[in-house]
Amino acid sequence: MTLNSLDRHRPEDDLVLDLTNVLDDVLGTTHGLSTREMEEWLPRLREAVAAVEEANYGFLDLPERRDLMAQVERVCTRSLEGKDTVVVLGIGGSALGPRAIFETAWGPYGMGEVGAPGGPSRRLLIADNIDPDGFAQLMQQLDPKKTLFNVISKSGSTVETMAQLTIAWRKISDAVGADNTPQHFAFTTDPIRGFLRETANRYDVPVMDIPDNVGGRFSVLTPVGLFPAMATGIDPKLLLGGAAAMNARCRGVEVESNPAAVLALVHFLMDRLKGKTISVLMPYSDRLRTFAEWFGQLWAESLGKNKSSSGEDRAPVGQTPVRALGTTDQHSQIQLYTEGPNDKLLTLIRVEDPGVDIELGAPGLTDGDSTLAYLQGHTLGEVFRIEQTATEMALVRAERPTLTWKSRTVGPHVLGQLFQVYELATAIAGELYNVNAFDQPGVEEGKNLTYGALGRSGYDEKGEELAAYQSRTEAWVLGGGK
Amino acid sequence: MTLNSLDRHRPEDDLVLDLTNVLDDVLGTTHGLSTREMEEWLPRLREAVAAVEEANYGFLDLPERRDLMAQVERVCTRSLEGKDTVVVLGIGGSALGPRAIFETAWGPYGMGEVGAPGGPSRRLLIADNIDPDGFAQLMQQLDPKKTLFNVISKSGSTVETMAQLTIAWRKISDAVGADNTPQHFAFTTDPIRGFLRETANRYDVPVMDIPDNVGGRFSVLTPVGLFPAMATGIDPKLLLGGAAAMNARCRGVEVESNPAAVLALVHFLMDRLKGKTISVLMPYSDRLRTFAEWFGQLWAESLGKNKSSSGEDRAPVGQTPVRALGTTDQHSQIQLYTEGPNDKLLTLIRVEDPGVDIELGAPGLTDGDSTLAYLQGHTLGEVFRIEQTATEMALVRAERPTLTWKSRTVGPHVLGQLFQVYELATAIAGELYNVNAFDQPGVEEGKNLTYGALGRSGYDEKGEELAAYQSRTEAWVLGGGK
Repeated sequence: MTLNSLDRHRPEDDLVLDLTNVLDDVLGTTHGLSTREMEEWLPRLREAVAAVEEANYGFLDLPERRDLMAQVERVCTRSLEGKDTVVVLGIGGSALGPRAIFETAWGPYGMGEVGAPGGPSRRLLIADNIDPDGFAQLMQQLDPKKTLFNVISKSGSTVETMAQLTIAWRKISDAVGADNTPQHFAFTTDPIRGFLRETANRYDVPVMDIPDNVGGRFSVLTPVGLFPAMATGIDPKLLLGGAAAMNARCRGVEVESNPAAVLALVHFLMDRLKGKTISVLMPYSDRLRTFAEWFGQLWAESLGKNKSSSGEDRAPVGQTPVRALGTTDQHSQIQLYTEGPNDKLLTLIRVEDPGVDIELGAPGLTDGDSTLAYLQGHTLGEVFRIEQTATEMALVRAERPTLTWKSRTVGPHVLGQLFQVYELATAIAGELYNVNAFDQPGVEEGKNLTYGALGRSGYDEKGEELAAYQSRTEAWVLGGGK
Repeated sequence: MTLNSLDRHRPEDDLVLDLTNVLDDVLGTTHGLSTREMEEWLPRLREAVAAVEEANYGFLDLPERRDLMAQVERVCTRSLEGKDTVVVLGIGGSALGPRAIFETAWGPYGMGEVGAPGGPSRRLLIADNIDPDGFAQLMQQLDPKKTLFNVISKSGSTVETMAQLTIAWRKISDAVGADNTPQHFAFTTDPIRGFLRETANRYDVPVMDIPDNVGGRFSVLTPVGLFPAMATGIDPKLLLGGAAAMNARCRGVEVESNPAAVLALVHFLMDRLKGKTISVLMPYSDRLRTFAEWFGQLWAESLGKNKSSSGEDRAPVGQTPVRALGTTDQHSQIQLYTEGPNDKLLTLIRVEDPGVDIELGAPGLTDGDSTLAYLQGHTLGEVFRIEQTATEMALVRAERPTLTWKSRTVGPHVLGQLFQVYELATAIAGELYNVNAFDQPGVEEGKNLTYGALGRSGYDEKGEELAAYQSRTEAWVLGGGK
């Protein structure tokens, strides 16, 4: 198996978190945090970290779960022969994690030639929507005989994923016959329960575990992310090694030097004391674009709650995550970020050496007294990094609190660190906000109404409610002859 | 030229705006708008619409600018022979508009086979970042002899785009010689001024206009969007026809039946009276995913301001736009949207007939008393639409104000309507907020610091400021041996 060689990890690649630009020294007291404000919260932060350790959430130890890696290796060996394409059927964490890994390893502009040096060993397609138009387009691109469908669902019953599965199963069965169909599937699901597990047992479909105590949005370092990684030529050990390195930096240390604890505290205090109800994550790295999407689910679904940890009603909390990309979004969002309401905490990610650079300048365009002469002698990477600094500086001048992650390189090892530090920070922030960061009751209503409308047994009442809603009189409509 | 046949426009495809779920009847008075609240603002809304008409902004009449269409047709005829790939070099509006058009016409999952029925006539790549890693990947995918670079910049001097241009010019020149290089470029820029215009004149590069009175984020229906559209087989008249139809619905009518005016008023009042500081745009359509990105720039950069129209300091305004995608983001953001802070106005887009559907069910999975039996007899499109309704209903039950656009189909004609109604609404909202919706002073600081650091003449002081910032002592850093 060709494994990704992009990652040139050295100890100095460990992520550095620069918090200078959230301090009152830099921003003033209205928008900056004072030492006193932070110190007052340190005892509570220590309790929060202790509570997370005590709860012993499943995601904490994923970097050490050799049993899960062994499952991934076994399914790779058993199922990939003759397959040139892996299609993930999954939604939410089941899609965002694999996509972030793939794009970080192989880059977002296409992906280089499959099988060529510097390219993935297989094509990865991720179907995380059920627009029939889009799904039909995706299915048309496949040669069923060379395709493996990796169906990912913690519960084993996610309606979107199950709907896709029935279509894919039929397509494969038509192409290779019912007997050979299971060889074109690999399931990733609960170790014991659910439709996917039962079906795997019944048809001998290869199956991998999402541990019971690991929720969907915390599952990227289970087979959810590791199988699509390994199947496309990315060494899962790079991801796990990064996560383990971050665990070592965060666990069993003083909270003041624990990046996850500090990250959680700064977000919490910026929200609570300084009115930063929005958290913008803006990597300056094409490869990390989809990491910001992954963060968006983690932060929104974990902390957007209206019940306390013990289940009582409370005033709703939860920062709204916004993903951006530098420099691209300087030309889309920065006007708002610098001159609009000061209601955001920004986090930039800077990569010192993306591994490639290109000289600027061209005969006939940049010579002599050309308007573009100033570009001559510089590289694209220099401009990229200067713009990151310039934007950071402009934000600070506008008194916008800004965190900056600094990394020497970018690749799976760095991504593993990012996954782990944000999962830890989310769990700790859940404690600070006093909410359950691991449930998602707010998505149940829509799910149950959908089951009702589809006629699933036990959901009749919900079906009637939806029908009543659909037949109500619209009160104010423009267009359509009304 | 093969033009996109996806659009099956009929008069009943005109977009319907359902505003029922922003009313106090449905949401209650805390989060819903009352008739009285809206009526109080009608005189001001009439003034705002009148001011926009009086200003006669350039974007208003773009659907009728046959001169611009003629330019696009001329460059297509002159420049596309033998080219199988068009690469847009542009950032901000110069990239977001072309991308939204291309994905709406051809779909987001890959794009079908180039040149095949139902696929684009040429490949379109859009380079809107300067990460050297990503840009190198993109350039590696090109055969220079078969590539046309469409360089788009209103000012003709955008640093990112100019940097890309020097690399592309050199690459083409190396491949085909200096004399033939201009044949691989087409510029889209200011009609008179700027480096691109001068270079076009000097080397006889084909060039198209962005009219002086049309800003970058309002320029999608100029050659900025129309050339990449036509060059890849999309009929620009579908876009322009949609925009003209929307103009007819919005201009010269009572504000109460003007969708743009009502859209602007609802956003403004939801922000000002009900604390909805975030505007979420969530199409249920893979093809409209990137339209939501385009909206994000338009809304953020136009309305995120801290000066009044007349240039005085004022309290900052501007909703933060967030783009989402149904059903995908039901599994990422809906928890926050339904149970987190009630600080959002949501806008859903529903497409009744995406033109394709797929039956659910597979022998062995959905028969008999299978857990998935409830899917049998339904289609993927049904589930998709039911989920849209169920989510809308869940949002309303949680008292979250929600607008719904309804369209029969999706394609360039519908997209043309959406472009025009949101541009009109943005201009009107600028009047309501009393800000200049057409400038972006907040991006100047970062730009000037960048010029300074690169040594562009006239920016020495800015260069020194950036150097001083870079050499300051960081006050609080975790990792990196500190």
